[in-house]
Amino acid sequence: MGPHPAVAAIRLAVRRVLHDVITEHSAPEHPLPGPAAAAHAAAGTAGETPGRPAQPPLVLVACSGGADSMALASALAFEARKLPVRAGAVTVDHGLQPGSDLRAAEVAARLTAMDLGPVEAVAVTVGRDGGPEAAARDARYAALDEAAERLGAAAVLLGHTRDDQAETVLLGLARGSGIRSLSGMAAVSGTAGRYRRPFLQLDRQTARKACMVQSLPVWDDPMNADPAYTRSRLRHEGLPALEKSLGKGVVEALARTAQLCRDDADALDAWAADADPSVRDEAGLLECAKLYALPPAVRRRVLRRAAIAEGAPAGSLFARHVEELDRLITGWRGQGAINLPGRVVARRQGGRLVIRQG
Amino acid sequence: MGPHPAVAAIRLAVRRVLHDVITEHSAPEHPLPGPAAAAHAAAGTAGETPGRPAQPPLVLVACSGGADSMALASALAFEARKLPVRAGAVTVDHGLQPGSDLRAAEVAARLTAMDLGPVEAVAVTVGRDGGPEAAARDARYAALDEAAERLGAAAVLLGHTRDDQAETVLLGLARGSGIRSLSGMAAVSGTAGRYRRPFLQLDRQTARKACMVQSLPVWDDPMNADPAYTRSRLRHEGLPALEKSLGKGVVEALARTAQLCRDDADALDAWAADADPSVRDEAGLLECAKLYALPPAVRRRVLRRAAIAEGAPAGSLFARHVEELDRLITGWRGQGAINLPGRVVARRQGGRLVIRQG
Repeated sequence: MGPHPAVAAIRLAVRRVLHDVITEHSAPEHPLPGPAAAAHAAAGTAGETPGRPAQPPLVLVACSGGADSMALASALAFEARKLPVRAGAVTVDHGLQPGSDLRAAEVAARLTAMDLGPVEAVAVTVGRDGGPEAAARDARYAALDEAAERLGAAAVLLGHTRDDQAETVLLGLARGSGIRSLSGMAAVSGTAGRYRRPFLQLDRQTARKACMVQSLPVWDDPMNADPAYTRSRLRHEGLPALEKSLGKGVVEALARTAQLCRDDADALDAWAADADPSVRDEAGLLECAKLYALPPAVRRRVLRRAAIAEGAPAGSLFARHVEELDRLITGWRGQGAINLPGRVVARRQGGRLVIRQG
Repeated sequence: MGPHPAVAAIRLAVRRVLHDVITEHSAPEHPLPGPAAAAHAAAGTAGETPGRPAQPPLVLVACSGGADSMALASALAFEARKLPVRAGAVTVDHGLQPGSDLRAAEVAARLTAMDLGPVEAVAVTVGRDGGPEAAARDARYAALDEAAERLGAAAVLLGHTRDDQAETVLLGLARGSGIRSLSGMAAVSGTAGRYRRPFLQLDRQTARKACMVQSLPVWDDPMNADPAYTRSRLRHEGLPALEKSLGKGVVEALARTAQLCRDDADALDAWAADADPSVRDEAGLLECAKLYALPPAVRRRVLRRAAIAEGAPAGSLFARHVEELDRLITGWRGQGAINLPGRVVARRQGGRLVIRQG
């Protein structure tokens, strides 16, 4: 008898990602001659080719002790036994609740008991920049980056599910800043594609079920249920109400929207990068008449790129800033200079759009 | 003392649209010589140039008797007195409730009392295609189209507000079919841009308020509060819950998202139309290798266009159909023919994608 369907599902999702990691890791930087490369690929191992690390790649799981990441850790431990990878884990102690250090130690002990190694509990100090959720996330990723570098990990697996993705799309929707913020989390992200999200197509219920049938004790982070946090309100009130209005397929539809928006945003960004040199004069200044002739969607992206290139921080440059910039092109009636975040100033001058840090 | 801010807001919104309609109407098909054209434009009237209608343009308001469209009718009646337009109205009797004919007659009487003319109450028969909401909408637009043609109207104003737009975006989101369905309603749509939505940037509360301060009696369509209808559930439960989770700016963010998505979708559709001939062989067949080289967002749109050109009905061709088509290009492992709506069949044959109606 095979494993429970939920357990089979989480293992399959992890196996696919591990295969990707192994394939990428074993691809030699200087390709081997044909047959040797084929044999190498057929063996499916990292082998011992001069110039590459002799060890199989290390894959870490980022585990909070919650159901999603515990399920992920269990699947990684199971699959890693059969594949040429080493599997370790990191749990981050955010220090936001009393006794969080003990909890982190307990989670680390459970991960070690799963035969994962190395296992680390890393304590971080959460700042205040951008609100409590953003600050905790920043601190967490900094710690994961540091651990991955120090341990030489090829990949760090994250337990985000399709439900998390749906929430992220709605959070992006609330910003009203366009399709990039609707594209949610990527399956592969970070430096050199370090972060992988095997569960992005899997629902939270499956991860929970997999923990239950494997008798894995899980910890429910009180932050996840605290209505002081936007994501928590969305999870417990907003999304259920939306499902009640629109039907059960909402989470899936949001996740599908994320993927479509990501592809669309990538294509339009590529178009803007392509168009950029064609709308500049010999001095490299943006020509208003040429900008005017671009499709609005492309023009706005060219303008956004230009503002960022001059020092406007991407995270503070909102749709309304770009809109105002755009009006210098499409609604010119002699308006004055426009102030953008990062002390960047834009003005129209002699048919050119001049953007400079002041 | 000027009018109440809500009344000023609805009048400004209508005035802007009327100016557009007048400008378009007075643009001669064969441009006048310079000075004459300038004088003509300065006069701002439809004038009496040979070959063009001598009368000022007729603008109709589609009015259900609800607050949004009653506010719209009142603003049209007010502004039309000062501008070279004739202002009339149409109210549609859907025949869905007992006494709906009396209600329609009453609305028509109120519209006539506003000095609008011609005013018509048009009875329609609502079918069942696509569910009750879609069937009512189809019947309503057919009646408005017919009335506009018969009366020679230059424009038909619709009372959709920013709140309606937000609901439409969420309904599109629930389909999970990409940014075209996130782009909501257009400010200008229909044959020759007949339909105009002056209130698309205005919130519903402003329209209500404008009716109140003008002592306009309004009728609340029971359909709008009936939880049997998706839009009604969304309005009374889904959207308020989302606002509670994400903050009050959600409606505005959704409306802004709609505009950004519309521009993005237009640009990508143009790119796909542009790319189409470049991925076909001399016989006009789609070449898989060339399709493969396109960005996924553009490739999917080329595939969608191709399926529609061969007879697949646009409304039944979902993201998952296009996804399956796409796998013939990006995930080729010898799969068989794919059945699409409208008895359209797609298969890969000798490096070509062959799409035909069976």
